Amino acid sequence: MISGMPSGQAARVGMSTGTPTTAIEDRFNVLALTFDGKQTQLESNRQAPVPVSGDALIRPTRMGICATDLELCKGYMDFTGVLGHEFVGIVESVADRKDNKWVGKRVVGTINCVCGKCDMCKAGLREHCRERTVLGIAGRDGCFAEQFTLPVWNLIEVPDNIDDDHAVFTEPLAAAYQIIRQLTVEGRPYITVLGDGRLGLLCAQVMSQLNATVRCVGKHAEKLQICEKWGVKHRLLQDVGLRNDQDIVVDCTGSPTGFTTALGMVRPRGTIVMKTTVAPQAQKKPADLSPLVINEINLIGSRCGPFSEAISALSSEKIDVLSLISRRAKLADAVEAIKTAAKPDVIKVLLEP
Amino acid sequence: MISGMPSGQAARVGMSTGTPTTAIEDRFNVLALTFDGKQTQLESNRQAPVPVSGDALIRPTRMGICATDLELCKGYMDFTGVLGHEFVGIVESVADRKDNKWVGKRVVGTINCVCGKCDMCKAGLREHCRERTVLGIAGRDGCFAEQFTLPVWNLIEVPDNIDDDHAVFTEPLAAAYQIIRQLTVEGRPYITVLGDGRLGLLCAQVMSQLNATVRCVGKHAEKLQICEKWGVKHRLLQDVGLRNDQDIVVDCTGSPTGFTTALGMVRPRGTIVMKTTVAPQAQKKPADLSPLVINEINLIGSRCGPFSEAISALSSEKIDVLSLISRRAKLADAVEAIKTAAKPDVIKVLLEP
Repeated sequence: MISGMPSGQAARVGMSTGTPTTAIEDRFNVLALTFDGKQTQLESNRQAPVPVSGDALIRPTRMGICATDLELCKGYMDFTGVLGHEFVGIVESVADRKDNKWVGKRVVGTINCVCGKCDMCKAGLREHCRERTVLGIAGRDGCFAEQFTLPVWNLIEVPDNIDDDHAVFTEPLAAAYQIIRQLTVEGRPYITVLGDGRLGLLCAQVMSQLNATVRCVGKHAEKLQICEKWGVKHRLLQDVGLRNDQDIVVDCTGSPTGFTTALGMVRPRGTIVMKTTVAPQAQKKPADLSPLVINEINLIGSRCGPFSEAISALSSEKIDVLSLISRRAKLADAVEAIKTAAKPDVIKVLLEP
Repeated sequence: MISGMPSGQAARVGMSTGTPTTAIEDRFNVLALTFDGKQTQLESNRQAPVPVSGDALIRPTRMGICATDLELCKGYMDFTGVLGHEFVGIVESVADRKDNKWVGKRVVGTINCVCGKCDMCKAGLREHCRERTVLGIAGRDGCFAEQFTLPVWNLIEVPDNIDDDHAVFTEPLAAAYQIIRQLTVEGRPYITVLGDGRLGLLCAQVMSQLNATVRCVGKHAEKLQICEKWGVKHRLLQDVGLRNDQDIVVDCTGSPTGFTTALGMVRPRGTIVMKTTVAPQAQKKPADLSPLVINEINLIGSRCGPFSEAISALSSEKIDVLSLISRRAKLADAVEAIKTAAKPDVIKVLLEP
């Protein structure tokens, strides 16, 4: 499991057994992709992350670029720091002796780092913790780096039969499975997944597991073509009328116009699932919310999802993720990789150390 | 029940028994409040409405001015024609002999006039009929007139123990009851009704019937004061923080800023019920939809509701509507009455023939 570990790994693993971490606190030699509020840049002398109590220090082996990363680089969430939240990696060390069992494990991690004490945490809504930081999204450096920290509480060990190329899709796939947790699907509904990007193509596969008539609607013929492999219906947006005839529409467009399109497709008393977050400044004109009321639409906001279901689906090969990998790049070339990921014909870009 | 019927009533009732209606087709002597796309005006020589097959000709005895009427006068729905959709009145005649039993009855009426044939009608979603017209809102003249038509299918006879001042509230009260049909209320949730206007104060009363902690939040101390009578908690908006701590928020503000306030009050994974429709041109800046996704809010659009439940509540005096009547005006003074209804300290304005 830990073959292919970078040189130097053994030494760092050794550091986890209770050795004080002060030795690494002063290191300024970590490679990381950062956003400073204005531009995205590669820093080669970033200070090494310091695990605090409860944390693990992780060396990622694969990282995935997500539409949210691209939005952050446009100012969404006013984020600054190390980007990235999709990863699979090896635990190099832990801050607390009780967590030693994690050292050397291959892991993925949930991205919400929670307090465990607030009303939300106590109400079983930890992903909505009032005091949370979010890996590479809010108040916490992300994983597009040689090393990063994450609480041990967030880690899930990856089964041996899921390789890194699959495991790195756990986080976005979990977000797709969240939809099924939130929806009540009865009868055999007509479902449109809007968007043929990274998340849209995952959601289309996940929704196809339901007793439903599912189609993926997007703007890119070559991306939609991938649906053929999965037996999922697909249509170009320009060929689809806004007929208010879909029981459920899942907005994965990542575009401020996706919401308006979804309103035009969903039937009265139907459901729109919103996966898209966009920087408000990207909205050119106000969305007309009155159809929500007139047509009595049920709109469900949907964010992070269950890792267990994603890992189970990857393990049993129910979901094809390899077809979504458009490009691979080294972390050292991450600035260029971010630009590549923004191109319309590109789906998933993976980073490697 | 038909005492107090205007003179000439008997003759018109006589016309209902199968006599051809051509005799009244050419009358141009009906008083009506109309909107022509630019201004609201009183027309004294409007053509008398002609009931077609399935229709009843109704003489309203009380009419209510609603926030939607005010929005229509700003261009919402691009409506032109006779305004008004809240009424209680007497059936003067019917187009079809089979409907003769309705003549002389005191009625209220649902406002969506449906085809009965489209996919929505066949799916049990008649209020969402693809071909519908809506009384005084879309494609059909409304009730702010001496006479108007409505399909017999839409009529509900008013029990004798509900007088006109109460019965005229059936339509907006039904809209408030619709919320209870759409919500799943479990535990003892915290519910905020946003808005202290006509609909807000009805919704606050209806929500108070649930096993819930309900408060009404508005901008007008004198309106909120009415809540005291009902034992409903109330707060001024300026005194309430946006704490994301309410399980359910019902937006009855009638304002484009209501949605943003609701987003600030509802807890993560909580529910917003949207009763407010506003003309998109009234929105000054785009609403930021990203909190819907980040906080995984469930947003439910809510429009027309069950008349049966409203009539039952009025009949059993569960709901106080008399306290909401701010002004009364004659139909002849309707232009002024519309202006009065738009004043911040005014709740319900009723029109009388």
